[in-house]
Amino acid sequence: MSSADESAVAAPPASSRALDARTVLVTGATGGLGRELVGACARAGATVVLLGRRVPALEALYDELLAGGAREPAIYPLDLAGATPADYAQLAEAVGRECGGLDAIVHAAVHFDGLAALARAEPEAWARALHVGLTGPWWLTQACLPLLARSDAGVVAFTLDDPARVAHAHWGAYSVAKAALARLVTVLGEELEASGTRVLGLALPSMPTGVRHKAYIAEDARSLATPRAVAEACVRALADRAVRGTFAPA
Amino acid sequence: MSSADESAVAAPPASSRALDARTVLVTGATGGLGRELVGACARAGATVVLLGRRVPALEALYDELLAGGAREPAIYPLDLAGATPADYAQLAEAVGRECGGLDAIVHAAVHFDGLAALARAEPEAWARALHVGLTGPWWLTQACLPLLARSDAGVVAFTLDDPARVAHAHWGAYSVAKAALARLVTVLGEELEASGTRVLGLALPSMPTGVRHKAYIAEDARSLATPRAVAEACVRALADRAVRGTFAPA
Repeated sequence: MSSADESAVAAPPASSRALDARTVLVTGATGGLGRELVGACARAGATVVLLGRRVPALEALYDELLAGGAREPAIYPLDLAGATPADYAQLAEAVGRECGGLDAIVHAAVHFDGLAALARAEPEAWARALHVGLTGPWWLTQACLPLLARSDAGVVAFTLDDPARVAHAHWGAYSVAKAALARLVTVLGEELEASGTRVLGLALPSMPTGVRHKAYIAEDARSLATPRAVAEACVRALADRAVRGTFAPA
Repeated sequence: MSSADESAVAAPPASSRALDARTVLVTGATGGLGRELVGACARAGATVVLLGRRVPALEALYDELLAGGAREPAIYPLDLAGATPADYAQLAEAVGRECGGLDAIVHAAVHFDGLAALARAEPEAWARALHVGLTGPWWLTQACLPLLARSDAGVVAFTLDDPARVAHAHWGAYSVAKAALARLVTVLGEELEASGTRVLGLALPSMPTGVRHKAYIAEDARSLATPRAVAEACVRALADRAVRGTFAPA
């Protein structure tokens, strides 16, 4: 893990930026939505912890952020498919130690194998999709809950997909994992209601990202929300303590 | 696997019984609802494949069914927590060979650790609950889909729980798995719509079973639906080709 710029966290510049001096962990940081979320968080003044699988892409994003005047980000390479509870405990410990705390998690990592009939999916592919789409995000969240509890504005945001779109044939384990995540948002949200930690379900619109292309080959990108506009709306939700539960960033 | 009484399957007695000469696999066969489902299927004329973890309990149920005049059941001991895709393939092969086919699956196995805060649950317990409550039932179903497709009345029924009850604090991975199963019913139901195989989500009411006792210690059992009445309603849904999707057996 690269070291965050602790002096900047200790002495934030006077600013009205919504996430100023906050530390935000973004999974799937180099993905279609992920990198826009990272950029939006950085523009809002946050120190971003970049979590992803591909180290060269993480390093390129790190350089891009620094060149753009962002606070120095941290890089944490991790593959949700293989990470164990011990790996998440280690991640939380590293973030606490090197960033001095954690204020927000945004789960932007996506696992989607493309549209296919359930009957023909490999059993192992089903298990992997559920693990990466549900169990991994929960384990990461659980490991970081003590850090979020110490923040005065702790928030964890899961990304959901519209049931009107994905509760249909051929959406497979991706759809099933999203339904499970939506329930997790409800249950965890109730459990943390009395604490300071908010739980958000970001009900994403269709966007022209690589993931979406796997499903809608012929969709007209001009009719879709842009990842940048969606990311900006997500950041407003992260910063707004009145927003809890499912939220449509559009 | 014990051998089913194939002569009885080949030459069913003249009867108006709803599942006469059908082969029905019931998971969690010796559980609170499971044993009532097994009894109701047997009374409706079905050959029941008893799937469960505890061999002595399966054998006692087998004896009870025979003594009550049921068709000779089959016993298949299996632990959903540890079974692999290869185990499910073997199960399907054995059922096809020894019972001559399969007409219905009812997923009555339940995994519920009791009410607890998500933050305090063991990560491994979460993964186990998702596996037993979701991935295992799907793998079993997938392995048996070719058998169900060869039936002229194939049906698979998953047991759901009421979101008004379980989409709340402390219902944990059990609740999350049930939300995922409900989505699976929708997606798989659409995919199999054109085929002969129906997909049911049995939206169970509160019943005074052991599982329920883990949640509602002080609940008055007299106000609840009886497992027997629920099981009879489930059997009517299994037999009624007009019933698809989510169904409340009450």
